[in-house]
Amino acid sequence: MRITRILALAIGAGAIVCAQAQQVKPEDQLKLRKSAYSLMNYSLGHLDAMAEGKRPYVKEEAIRYADLLAQLSTVPKGFFGEGTDKVGETRAKPEVWTNRADFDAKMDKMVNEVAKLPQTARGGDPAALKKAVHDVDAACTSCHDDYRVKRKG
Amino acid sequence: MRITRILALAIGAGAIVCAQAQQVKPEDQLKLRKSAYSLMNYSLGHLDAMAEGKRPYVKEEAIRYADLLAQLSTVPKGFFGEGTDKVGETRAKPEVWTNRADFDAKMDKMVNEVAKLPQTARGGDPAALKKAVHDVDAACTSCHDDYRVKRKG
Repeated sequence: MRITRILALAIGAGAIVCAQAQQVKPEDQLKLRKSAYSLMNYSLGHLDAMAEGKRPYVKEEAIRYADLLAQLSTVPKGFFGEGTDKVGETRAKPEVWTNRADFDAKMDKMVNEVAKLPQTARGGDPAALKKAVHDVDAACTSCHDDYRVKRKG
Repeated sequence: MRITRILALAIGAGAIVCAQAQQVKPEDQLKLRKSAYSLMNYSLGHLDAMAEGKRPYVKEEAIRYADLLAQLSTVPKGFFGEGTDKVGETRAKPEVWTNRADFDAKMDKMVNEVAKLPQTARGGDPAALKKAVHDVDAACTSCHDDYRVKRKG
């Protein structure tokens, strides 16, 4: 029953992101996905620093950033629509659109890993948080390696 | 007891945003607050269109955007730190920094109105959603009137 509910939610979220891509102008899609990634990068960086002991572990902060990240993680997928590779500065490689099924699978893997963070943060165990953050990092890197242009210099 | 808990959460959130402003570079603060506003504008626009009957009312979508908006609403306040008026394009007026207490009060009013959206969306009553969205719109406009430069043309 639980799996059925998760599947229903996933399909529902998928329907929303498909509807998004159809109705939002390419330049707005680009802006929105970059906005989501900027905030995700900030939130994950904060969690990462706590998990690695580079800043104090504060449970309430971990929950705050885990929740924010979970909400944001489902946003970008809906904003890689047709034409969004030609309307402004982007590090997205052409392979996003030519290998779409694999790109989507890697995106879904990230969303699934991020979805574990809120509960893990509420558990209050820094070691568990560290493991969960590493799993998210790995999912991000896996997609960036194939689908994001590296920065120069 | 409930009010005590809400106060504790508000103070906790305040502590987080203060810590943010101290540690994040001005140019990154500017990018993050603009990112949050872009996604808030998109989410509220979607809710507004549903509330006004300009797009079909879908309860699950309303919940999705209400939750996203609630998470994002507390982000901008932490990223109006010193120097963030001089590191890139911004429509924030100088009064943000000279009338800070009033600006913060208007920001808090918006956060409080947005905080009602998730529960209202879960209630599933389109009329109640419309009222709640109007209250958020009014809180946004109140701040924009005083603290945001109008677009030309």
